Amino acid sequence: MDSIAGGGAVTTRTPRVARARRLLRRKHRDEDGRFLAEGPQAVREALAAGVVTELFYEPGRGPSVQALADQAEAAGLRTTAAGEQVLAALTETVTPQGIVAVCRQVHVDLAVALGRQPSLVVVLAGIADPGNAGTILRTADAAGATAVIFPDATVDPYNGKCVRASAGSIFHVDLVRGGEPRAVVAALREAGLRVLAADAHGTTDLDEFAAAGGLAARTGWLFGSEAHGLPEDLAAQADARVRVPMHGRAESLNLAAAAAVCLYSSARAQHASGAPR
Amino acid sequence: MDSIAGGGAVTTRTPRVARARRLLRRKHRDEDGRFLAEGPQAVREALAAGVVTELFYEPGRGPSVQALADQAEAAGLRTTAAGEQVLAALTETVTPQGIVAVCRQVHVDLAVALGRQPSLVVVLAGIADPGNAGTILRTADAAGATAVIFPDATVDPYNGKCVRASAGSIFHVDLVRGGEPRAVVAALREAGLRVLAADAHGTTDLDEFAAAGGLAARTGWLFGSEAHGLPEDLAAQADARVRVPMHGRAESLNLAAAAAVCLYSSARAQHASGAPR
Repeated sequence: MDSIAGGGAVTTRTPRVARARRLLRRKHRDEDGRFLAEGPQAVREALAAGVVTELFYEPGRGPSVQALADQAEAAGLRTTAAGEQVLAALTETVTPQGIVAVCRQVHVDLAVALGRQPSLVVVLAGIADPGNAGTILRTADAAGATAVIFPDATVDPYNGKCVRASAGSIFHVDLVRGGEPRAVVAALREAGLRVLAADAHGTTDLDEFAAAGGLAARTGWLFGSEAHGLPEDLAAQADARVRVPMHGRAESLNLAAAAAVCLYSSARAQHASGAPR
Repeated sequence: MDSIAGGGAVTTRTPRVARARRLLRRKHRDEDGRFLAEGPQAVREALAAGVVTELFYEPGRGPSVQALADQAEAAGLRTTAAGEQVLAALTETVTPQGIVAVCRQVHVDLAVALGRQPSLVVVLAGIADPGNAGTILRTADAAGATAVIFPDATVDPYNGKCVRASAGSIFHVDLVRGGEPRAVVAALREAGLRVLAADAHGTTDLDEFAAAGGLAARTGWLFGSEAHGLPEDLAAQADARVRVPMHGRAESLNLAAAAAVCLYSSARAQHASGAPR
């Protein structure tokens, strides 16, 4: 256990630890406008994004943890050295990684994100699994999407599992949080985006649509929940309902795999055609 | 608790239950040449594949469970109605689905799989996470791969989490298990397949390679572990080391997403070019 300025050991009851620990719950994240990013990769990206307000780390956890703690101190951020138990209390992972940053929430208004004229936008409509949502956020970033929208009834992007699965991408894109899903889709279309619903039972084949030039436009992709897909009223709003072709005997892809195929098809089409129209 | 022929309640100590339960461990799966498939979807595919030797189900779990139990009985298979606790003891899931089939292992020899002149083959080299392996198996099937190889040092394809994540695809493809990885790659090349290593640091860009016609050939894809990628000696054996382009600021994709992008690029190229050469 390490001591802090003013003396005394750092425990889970230390006020700054207790305040950070509250952020494991969505209610408190929203009250405080903060969230937790855990592990060297996420903390590195959070520091680069300039959103870290405070850092907790475990001394002796290795050079990458120590280097990030040094970097945070040099930047004038409050850093707290603490024991393994304190770090464990600040995460929900089975194997804590020895470093946790308290971050300012990074989401922007939908109007701001759309005002930047994004070429590729992702809407996660009703996705409940935070690991899936974070994985798609990471894939969206990799495919060149610059805005990712978590409307109402979707998992909280600041959920620890989502932040972890995003592997830093939560700090790279324009993150939008909340909004009635149909209003979000209407706003996308008004901003000049072609809206495509990923739909395992869709009438439009992804590869045929791509070959016909359908993916070269600026595009907003809608992905629905693992269990139920997109709500019918939302899918019906899209310009096309697009299915990933099944070449073998599988009935479907899992959600994150389907999103990877769709988003990389868009990326390929947009890059092949130069700047999207 | 239900009674079985001969009287007495079915419990986890009932010999047939105890024998099935052993199959939760790889050692016993290999000794018995059997594995467990859980849930209506997996059981349906196992029955269709004709590999079920015995079925356990929970009466009152709904029409799809009952219909499968009836189908198994009509096929002359031994079916055992049992309580929730017995079914729970036969799975490692948090929420048992009320039906478990004991199945004959379905893998074939590498020579048999390659003798069928597959156009698209997937090698999972050193993948440790059963959920990832099962997800890629499902994606491989969807993309039209007809053989999936789990060489030595890769997770057991009959692991419950792998079977579950494959969503039935373990029964659709030629599954190959074991084999020294370099010998597997040599056999693929000898069978006329172009061998491609998925490599985040590869020198060949996937989209450029596809545009140049590189994916139209019969192809074997190598995917390495989540943490360490492909072993250098294995990647060096490939005809090309191919990276998925990063268009945004993400450093990489997760393994299952990268595999989806690679395999669907191959599927697109092979279908666009007619029968692969």
